[in-house]
Amino acid sequence: MKVSFIGLGVMGYPMAGHLVQAGFEVFVFNRTTEKAVRWSNEFGGRHCVTIAECVQDADVVAVCVGNDDDVRQMTTADSGAISHMKSGAILVDHTTTSAELAEELSKAAQARGIGFMDAPVSGGQAGAENGGLTIMCGGDEATFEQLQPVFAAYGKSSVLMGAVGQGQRAKMVNQICIAGVLTGLSEGLLLAQKSGLNIPALVDCLKNGAAGSWQMENRANTMAQDKFDFGFAIDWMIKDLGFCIDEASRQGLQLPLTEQSLERYKQLSQQGESRSDTSVLLKAIRADADK
Amino acid sequence: MKVSFIGLGVMGYPMAGHLVQAGFEVFVFNRTTEKAVRWSNEFGGRHCVTIAECVQDADVVAVCVGNDDDVRQMTTADSGAISHMKSGAILVDHTTTSAELAEELSKAAQARGIGFMDAPVSGGQAGAENGGLTIMCGGDEATFEQLQPVFAAYGKSSVLMGAVGQGQRAKMVNQICIAGVLTGLSEGLLLAQKSGLNIPALVDCLKNGAAGSWQMENRANTMAQDKFDFGFAIDWMIKDLGFCIDEASRQGLQLPLTEQSLERYKQLSQQGESRSDTSVLLKAIRADADK
Repeated sequence: MKVSFIGLGVMGYPMAGHLVQAGFEVFVFNRTTEKAVRWSNEFGGRHCVTIAECVQDADVVAVCVGNDDDVRQMTTADSGAISHMKSGAILVDHTTTSAELAEELSKAAQARGIGFMDAPVSGGQAGAENGGLTIMCGGDEATFEQLQPVFAAYGKSSVLMGAVGQGQRAKMVNQICIAGVLTGLSEGLLLAQKSGLNIPALVDCLKNGAAGSWQMENRANTMAQDKFDFGFAIDWMIKDLGFCIDEASRQGLQLPLTEQSLERYKQLSQQGESRSDTSVLLKAIRADADK
Repeated sequence: MKVSFIGLGVMGYPMAGHLVQAGFEVFVFNRTTEKAVRWSNEFGGRHCVTIAECVQDADVVAVCVGNDDDVRQMTTADSGAISHMKSGAILVDHTTTSAELAEELSKAAQARGIGFMDAPVSGGQAGAENGGLTIMCGGDEATFEQLQPVFAAYGKSSVLMGAVGQGQRAKMVNQICIAGVLTGLSEGLLLAQKSGLNIPALVDCLKNGAAGSWQMENRANTMAQDKFDFGFAIDWMIKDLGFCIDEASRQGLQLPLTEQSLERYKQLSQQGESRSDTSVLLKAIRADADK
């Protein structure tokens, strides 16, 4: 089975590597060719200089790039994957995108007899590296079943959330929940620090109870040290929360905390925090709290 | 060792029972005597009709009642515990109160040669019943050590957070974090429901990742069913978040999400939800989201 992978960023690079290790014939394409060469030297798969060459005869083409337009450039553009894939193949998009893009790609693929699944992931760089990603899928069951061997190479679990677009909407819910957890955790930590509480002892005490969260367990101590130079960069979170607001608005919903979090991340990005972990939200909340 | 327990509510009733089962000589007092009689019949400890009778000669007097004034009535009032306890005994308050009350009680106790520890708990009714409470303590180390056998009867862990009042402040951080988690989870669930996502599948997919929380794992599915007739009643949460706002304000901090959550809980309480679980916050957020 031949699998092509487009986009060798911090996520795609190790994901494509896992495909080689799982025994697939793997072809890769990356806009910056140097990275594709490095990947090829590391994993032994084949790097291609055009998308057409990369996806030709592939059974599955996986994409993991930046934003909606990046995905379009790799898939629906004239030089993109869809016009060069064989009929009966499957296009799977691991990029976090709008739900509308998923629907757009699905239609374009269908018109050429190609299957499609939106399949954004969570688990971050660490999950991509250790094959522990969670994959949220939108599409039909037959496509989902066909993709299981591929997903198993880099995912610890994959869940079919519903029709095309539902994988993206599940990912949006994930990001909204993170924004809420971090807002509460930030306000709590501010009071804890002003009170002189021992933060590691506090976290140990609270983390398994009703206030507990992944963010408390994995970020509260670094937040208390003002350490944010790692993790999930807020520029990606800004993109993702933008999708959340757009999708909610399309469905007639207002999500005030999500909107406020998006604004705070935009301010932080302008203040030079664009590569900081999402837990840097603490800084914006602290600036408001001390007013 | 004689331990007296004042306040046989949903928390105190089983907590005092665990003390009997742990082998302590236990005396109890409750404002409604019927409950004390029932407790005595169930566990075999002795019920008293006055606080004086209850606390006389006790080595430890534990209190678990409603609000700050209830605690004062049981402790610093003329008929309260402090004026009838023996010198060298310890007063421990398991009620969630203001940090100022903890300081006030500590001083009143000290003036009579009595030790004091603020020791609010988390884990709810289930934790009280199965001896699985987490106990957040404020006071000195010697007192904390002396109380270990008592805490072990109903707590799975007790942590000394610092001086008197720090147990209460740790509990405040806990409640603030819960408010944040529930706000994000509510906004996320609203989008999920409007999108027609399968909520149990979504929860399974997200709960162990970066968006995961105790509330997501234990409340998201009941929230999606609009089931709120269980759990931690919002009237208690209103009391607790009030302490958070007061304490933050005393320290020159504004906590906007905590304030907003308090307002939302007050509205919900007026709308007949006073006994509903804190996850009922979803209803207030839904009302705003659909505007």
